[in-house]
Amino acid sequence: MSSDDVRLADLPLREDLRGRTPYGAPQLEVPVRLNTNENPFPPPGELVEDVTAAVREAAADLHRYPDRDAVELRRDLAGYLSGATGVPLSERNLWAANGSNEILQQLLQAFGGTGRTALGFEPSYSMHPIIAAGTRTEWLPAPRRPDFTLDAARAAEIVTERGPDVVFVTSPNNPTGGSIPLSELEPVLRAAPGIVVVDEAYAEFSAQPSAVRLLEDYPAKLVVSRTMSKAFAFAGGRVGYLAAAPAIVDALQLVRLPYHLSVMTQAAARAALRHAGATLASVARLAAERDRVVEALRGLGFAPVPSDANFVLFGLFADAPVSWRSYVDNGVLIRDVGIEGHLRVTIGTPEENDAFLAASKEVPR
Amino acid sequence: MSSDDVRLADLPLREDLRGRTPYGAPQLEVPVRLNTNENPFPPPGELVEDVTAAVREAAADLHRYPDRDAVELRRDLAGYLSGATGVPLSERNLWAANGSNEILQQLLQAFGGTGRTALGFEPSYSMHPIIAAGTRTEWLPAPRRPDFTLDAARAAEIVTERGPDVVFVTSPNNPTGGSIPLSELEPVLRAAPGIVVVDEAYAEFSAQPSAVRLLEDYPAKLVVSRTMSKAFAFAGGRVGYLAAAPAIVDALQLVRLPYHLSVMTQAAARAALRHAGATLASVARLAAERDRVVEALRGLGFAPVPSDANFVLFGLFADAPVSWRSYVDNGVLIRDVGIEGHLRVTIGTPEENDAFLAASKEVPR
Repeated sequence: MSSDDVRLADLPLREDLRGRTPYGAPQLEVPVRLNTNENPFPPPGELVEDVTAAVREAAADLHRYPDRDAVELRRDLAGYLSGATGVPLSERNLWAANGSNEILQQLLQAFGGTGRTALGFEPSYSMHPIIAAGTRTEWLPAPRRPDFTLDAARAAEIVTERGPDVVFVTSPNNPTGGSIPLSELEPVLRAAPGIVVVDEAYAEFSAQPSAVRLLEDYPAKLVVSRTMSKAFAFAGGRVGYLAAAPAIVDALQLVRLPYHLSVMTQAAARAALRHAGATLASVARLAAERDRVVEALRGLGFAPVPSDANFVLFGLFADAPVSWRSYVDNGVLIRDVGIEGHLRVTIGTPEENDAFLAASKEVPR
Repeated sequence: MSSDDVRLADLPLREDLRGRTPYGAPQLEVPVRLNTNENPFPPPGELVEDVTAAVREAAADLHRYPDRDAVELRRDLAGYLSGATGVPLSERNLWAANGSNEILQQLLQAFGGTGRTALGFEPSYSMHPIIAAGTRTEWLPAPRRPDFTLDAARAAEIVTERGPDVVFVTSPNNPTGGSIPLSELEPVLRAAPGIVVVDEAYAEFSAQPSAVRLLEDYPAKLVVSRTMSKAFAFAGGRVGYLAAAPAIVDALQLVRLPYHLSVMTQAAARAALRHAGATLASVARLAAERDRVVEALRGLGFAPVPSDANFVLFGLFADAPVSWRSYVDNGVLIRDVGIEGHLRVTIGTPEENDAFLAASKEVPR
């Protein structure tokens, strides 16, 4: 038997992985790609130059391991997040990893795992149950209201009943777009016996205050995860981070792989943070475009779900997969997130959004 | 209670993590640092320029997610490894991650985990049991001979008896330095009921042929892991990789976090691979220096363990921690790897090695 003849089924794979397929949005060569919630605006030239200069400097030491604790990057992230939320934070409150997925994986390695449970309010970010499975944490799905908002009182009841070790609250929620007010988050925090991870990957697009404001009130429970992928237009750079009590950061250092962040990642992210003002200017443009797209969709007779993020879930379709295919045939790649009758579109440049709206007039409903 | 007052013990941490401390060599400000098996030679100027140019180009697309499958990088790694081993390999045989630690973690996520076991021959790379614990894989330690070589017949017996899901064989072995001949690896491969991970992080420093040569004979069992950290002088870039049957690569895609390798990592690693000739020239220099250091240690009455790598384990010390401290006091940071009577020194530049040898005359034995 040659190496090419071995099939996945021949391998001594974990039983619960058998028959699975890898996570990932279909990547198709289509003119307008509005499927992965990327920021459509390329990084400004000054940012590219600054990242390049930072990497050139870091590259002279490529033969040495990076700072294992990424202290300077964490300090810069603390500075940014303090400024954005008004909450004083230091590098001891911050932790960074290769994308917020790695942050979430480390959290589940430390606080979840075999014999433990994680609960999320669905539909929500589909990586939460996948990363739970990857860390052998039992996944407990809990419902949202039919309009996809979170019923805070009911959510707190469910958390009390089920007693999960980890609760995920995504705000703004992906793929539905709405944020949860802090007053509605608090009942969940009070009810939770373990940690509560508020996934704020899209926070910069929302007018709601960040859960970071609650850190001092729930220091042994609350973790706020963030990413540079969206508002910072740094999806290719792979930097996620969190804010929490210093002890939670200490806990993650017990499970992180040593030297997980390369010298280039640390240097480039710091350079990108120096350009936060310019990059975040795109957030206001995207929020305005989002509101325009929502209005236009309504005008076309669709039912868009109110969104605080850089994407919009909208319906209703008699057969969403068929309509998704029709968008592709019209040159526009959006996302079928598996919610009956609905599709999700990422807000792109004005031209991309126009192309999407034009295609929306053509697709079957 | 404020955020700063929460202690690790107050958190709902996994029980098996309580009381642990993070992995990592002590990092001290000492003139000569020979403790983490880094390549002491900085990357050549042309490599730095090429990495910088590659990152500049990649940075223009930082707002987009990277190639999730890192196909071009895997193709380049396949080209390098085929050339180095004489075994034809394609990108379908290769997989890459943020350091070989992430490679090993993904392997244990796919083939280990709760209710499964991983076996290694100790003393060996201390991250193997740590990553096993992080993935809840039960660790089965097995012995080496008193001279740290692997008794292949005995090893195969132990593997048959214990039936581990994953076997680790480190060659050259860290921290002891010796390689295992392929003829001695084969009994272990035949005995293994699951997969066998041959960790070849230091392979370029060894004259022994790579286990890659056995891939066609054991396609459903053998995985060879490698790193760009050592011979490629790319520790700061964080790129590990493996060669195996395509089905094993498929299996890892079920557990990898999507977009785990940044655009910068992919671009920089490809640039570094274009300079393999220049970088790998340092390997011969380091091997010659290693042989000089071993000779000199023998001349000083020490007992160095024969090494195929860029480090040397040596004894005998009446109290290794005391002698380690004395090296530090003499301005030389080496590594106490916890083997009674022994310390490990990384081979540095000729000047660094001279400083180490000079200190060796001063330290208590």
